[in-house]
Amino acid sequence: MTQPAPAISSFHPPRRILMGPGPSDVPQRILDAMARPTIGHLDPAFQDMMEQIKTLLRYAFQTENQLTFPVSGPGSVGMETCFVNLVEPGDKVIVCTNGVFGGRMLENVKRVGGVPVLVEDAWGRAVDANKVEAAFQANPDAKILAFVHAETSTGAQSDAAALAAIARKYGALTLMDCVTSLGGTPVLLDQWGIDAAYSGSQKCLSCTPGLSPVSFSEAAIAKVRARKTPVQSWFMDLNLVLGYWGGEGKRTYHHTAPINPLYGLHEALVILAEEGLDNAWARHRAMHEMLKTGLEGMGLAFVVAENERLPQLNSVALPAGLDDAAARARLLNEFDLEIGAGLGALSGKIWRIGLMGASARRENVETCLKALGAVLA
Amino acid sequence: MTQPAPAISSFHPPRRILMGPGPSDVPQRILDAMARPTIGHLDPAFQDMMEQIKTLLRYAFQTENQLTFPVSGPGSVGMETCFVNLVEPGDKVIVCTNGVFGGRMLENVKRVGGVPVLVEDAWGRAVDANKVEAAFQANPDAKILAFVHAETSTGAQSDAAALAAIARKYGALTLMDCVTSLGGTPVLLDQWGIDAAYSGSQKCLSCTPGLSPVSFSEAAIAKVRARKTPVQSWFMDLNLVLGYWGGEGKRTYHHTAPINPLYGLHEALVILAEEGLDNAWARHRAMHEMLKTGLEGMGLAFVVAENERLPQLNSVALPAGLDDAAARARLLNEFDLEIGAGLGALSGKIWRIGLMGASARRENVETCLKALGAVLA
Repeated sequence: MTQPAPAISSFHPPRRILMGPGPSDVPQRILDAMARPTIGHLDPAFQDMMEQIKTLLRYAFQTENQLTFPVSGPGSVGMETCFVNLVEPGDKVIVCTNGVFGGRMLENVKRVGGVPVLVEDAWGRAVDANKVEAAFQANPDAKILAFVHAETSTGAQSDAAALAAIARKYGALTLMDCVTSLGGTPVLLDQWGIDAAYSGSQKCLSCTPGLSPVSFSEAAIAKVRARKTPVQSWFMDLNLVLGYWGGEGKRTYHHTAPINPLYGLHEALVILAEEGLDNAWARHRAMHEMLKTGLEGMGLAFVVAENERLPQLNSVALPAGLDDAAARARLLNEFDLEIGAGLGALSGKIWRIGLMGASARRENVETCLKALGAVLA
Repeated sequence: MTQPAPAISSFHPPRRILMGPGPSDVPQRILDAMARPTIGHLDPAFQDMMEQIKTLLRYAFQTENQLTFPVSGPGSVGMETCFVNLVEPGDKVIVCTNGVFGGRMLENVKRVGGVPVLVEDAWGRAVDANKVEAAFQANPDAKILAFVHAETSTGAQSDAAALAAIARKYGALTLMDCVTSLGGTPVLLDQWGIDAAYSGSQKCLSCTPGLSPVSFSEAAIAKVRARKTPVQSWFMDLNLVLGYWGGEGKRTYHHTAPINPLYGLHEALVILAEEGLDNAWARHRAMHEMLKTGLEGMGLAFVVAENERLPQLNSVALPAGLDDAAARARLLNEFDLEIGAGLGALSGKIWRIGLMGASARRENVETCLKALGAVLA
């Protein structure tokens, strides 16, 4: 005798306007793609699509890296994939923290047995290149520099080209988080000389969450191949994953790929290629300018200085005395508008307003400004 | 100047009949659910749905375990989540291997620093309870027994209740792979006394691949909480994941959940609850009988003995002289029918015909028998 079945019916989500730190609004074209018939992960038709995704991702990352593919998990799995493969126990890693996600990188370094050298900057500031230079001077044996290009917890953007140049000077690899930047502001892996990068599907690519595009340079792959110890994760071991995502020849089963989410990512990348990166970046910038004018008109102050500010993630300080949770609940319930709360040390102190992917459009900015005006009145 | 955008258009998959070892046919209701508007992972409406998924999964697993939820990754991540949390370096783990997935368990034990004690059975056979008893007699200090309930690589089913009873007698926890059994044949976690189990969304639940339902008993949670060493994976650390999936109270952001795939899993579980487990099991059994009659009528021999055979995964030996790859290509190209090849040692020697979830229906069996008849003629 089995336990009785619960009486639960199909779920029909409300329709929201997503202007938090991700997920962003998912265009109907992408939702439609996800609903196409499931086929097998070894079907020749599916494998052709995998090659197209790799080509499209190389465009998004502006790289020639052969090893560019989506990890079958959220951005955190992309992050962990980079660290478990590139860092061997005992490797010294310079880790820059200026928000939540730099802190998560530090945690990853510790859990793989790396030796972290911390470069700390205030939350809301970019990573200070002078501090990174000083860290390498004090630790010339550091093997890897790890930093977050676009800190999702604050909206600060760091100078990836300058940081990677320092690492190169000291013969170290560069590992970059570009979860929130890919598709929204320039991410130029090859021009900057980035060796490993990971992103997420649900930010400026406007796809549903759950996939993490990654890219590895030849130097990064060489470091993985030269490891003396096995990668601690079976699922994330690039030596194994490569049998499935690597070549264009015979593919070996490693794990069952998330078929329909990959249809969605493919469509999101086709949309990006249709618009063109330059146009997408300009759109994010223009919508940011429009939002900024409106927010400052209401007396809201940005957390990040203008020269270090991401256009697609706008952090503003909460007005004194405002009930954070109650105000966001009103935005959600009265306007179907989601914006982001502060994380960690900034919890209850800031709001994060996302203008990512399809959410970076005039109607959303207007709706957001109107709703904020009502709630702050 | 950015590199030029690739000229790649939207992907339209062919319509296949999926009778391999998973993914199985995904019903239109589930595809439609996945295409509903994306909302945030901290949206109250989404959090209500998460609680419903937990309730529905408890029904599917026949358990009262509070900690029952879908891991945000394929079955391999569910497997690794169980091992990285439950096994501490130095822990002795009795691992049963009778196919590919037992071997993957062994690899997991090694990568987390556990000490494996191997119980080997021939591919195509169930795990031998006498050997497990002997392994515990020789290793009474073993902390965990790990086995695969339904070996996807062969179609053999092991006696989970008997194996768990042996582990209990020796004070060890039981960790079970039920990727291919959940929803297709009885999986009775509480009645059998299973402490940790993982499954996959794309087998008898008939959802798209990419999610891994897991369940942990109180004893399993106690072992995780008593760890002296940190869990080596940040993403899979249950102490952290619990902040998001655990309670019904305030949820803490850990990673961004795969929203739309979870809509799909919710719908798949609603469909299972509507049909009822007993009916679903009976349907898998009936379709197996029908397929079996047809296959044996063509002179195809089953790999697994009848008393150890899974109804939802039918492995048959290839007729002598048949070109495996060419025959499967004909099935795909002429009949849009996918069946599974042999894995590992059985590559080129067997076919695996799945009757999982929505694929376990009369029309599929008829199509399959007709197509096989044409190809083997």
